[in-house]
Amino acid sequence: MVVGKVVGSVVATRKNEGLLGSKFMIVQPLSNMEAKGRIVAVDNVGAGIGEIVLVATGSAARIGCDMANAPVDAAIVGIVDNSIGLMED
Amino acid sequence: MVVGKVVGSVVATRKNEGLLGSKFMIVQPLSNMEAKGRIVAVDNVGAGIGEIVLVATGSAARIGCDMANAPVDAAIVGIVDNSIGLMED
Amino acid sequence: MVVGKVVGSVVATRKNEGLLGSKFMIVQPLSNMEAKGRIVAVDNVGAGIGEIVLVATGSAARIGCDMANAPVDAAIVGIVDNSIGLMED
Amino acid sequence: MVVGKVVGSVVATRKNEGLLGSKFMIVQPLSNMEAKGRIVAVDNVGAGIGEIVLVATGSAARIGCDMANAPVDAAIVGIVDNSIGLMED
Amino acid sequence: MVVGKVVGSVVATRKNEGLLGSKFMIVQPLSNMEAKGRIVAVDNVGAGIGEIVLVATGSAARIGCDMANAPVDAAIVGIVDNSIGLMED
Repeated sequence: MVVGKVVGSVVATRKNEGLLGSKFMIVQPLSNMEAKGRIVAVDNVGAGIGEIVLVATGSAARIGCDMANAPVDAAIVGIVDNSIGLMED
Repeated sequence: MVVGKVVGSVVATRKNEGLLGSKFMIVQPLSNMEAKGRIVAVDNVGAGIGEIVLVATGSAARIGCDMANAPVDAAIVGIVDNSIGLMED
Repeated sequence: MVVGKVVGSVVATRKNEGLLGSKFMIVQPLSNMEAKGRIVAVDNVGAGIGEIVLVATGSAARIGCDMANAPVDAAIVGIVDNSIGLMED
Repeated sequence: MVVGKVVGSVVATRKNEGLLGSKFMIVQPLSNMEAKGRIVAVDNVGAGIGEIVLVATGSAARIGCDMANAPVDAAIVGIVDNSIGLMED
Repeated sequence: MVVGKVVGSVVATRKNEGLLGSKFMIVQPLSNMEAKGRIVAVDNVGAGIGEIVLVATGSAARIGCDMANAPVDAAIVGIVDNSIGLMED
């Protein structure tokens, strides 16, 4: 998984029907993460802009968030409220 | 998912039969996205050149777009018509 | 998917039995693609060296090419014979 | 798989219910690994901070660690206690 | 798939039970491959240090090597004994 900050959101009126009702958030991974650039993730936990979140990618996003048949490859699955060593070198 | 701009298309007359009838669009991810280079994605929503779209990758593209048995690893699944913070730092 | 040029091939006499009969081609993605380096892909369409091809990666390669139980993570699934905007900036 | 060092951990009180009871460790891949930045992985073997571990990513993390329906895309699946050539050029 | 050289191995006494009996080899991809850094792959073909091998990644490694329920995301599935254009520009 990736830890990042929610920095925005995207709206797509015309979309695949499996995506109806989903909220698409833009997540900027923390700078020392493997993922370097922004990811668009479906919100599974009610995250808001500015929050630090945990993002699952790949089939885990679909299957772990009860969207097994939707074209979703990333989901916010937790809101980080504590950490050890997250930003240290 | 990735947000990018449709910049072209590709035609392959000789192809896997699971791809018959599919349109292959070339998508250039926005510059701050995790994906940096172009992706060839099957069009699932009627996207045109110049539009800003949402692309799902991996098994989500096949399974979420009713092409579970086709060799497809990326699909355009939405057309972006509004956003917050998409291009800001 | 990725568009690239077939630049060679690889032979492995000792291999997993699910790979018997497969041809392994070396594909160099075009320079503006997300994939930057060479990929070894099973040939599903009769591609030859020098041809510009469409490569599917991940589970799509296995499942979309009737090799669901083979250790294959990339396959050539089309030969590109026309394109719009493929090499433009 | 990736070999890395456990450098921290993350707590998310509000999270997907499939993640209840999971421990999220931050793993820094060794410098010559394909993965360059930090990965958040569920701990499957009782790893502690400072240990050198083996991390599996993608569907292998969910399915191989009895969490097939959880939104998990990386798991610590071994603690490295010996190696040949791990850090040599 | 990726072509690389076996440069070492890793031992993990404490590990997920699905990995019991597996040998973990360290593979350095050839310099022009898409994968740039080292990958830890389960050996499926009896590869030795110094050999040039074919590595499958993702679900293909598990499913194609009769380890569908093991946390394995990369496997050596062939030993390369001949090639055309492998190292040329």
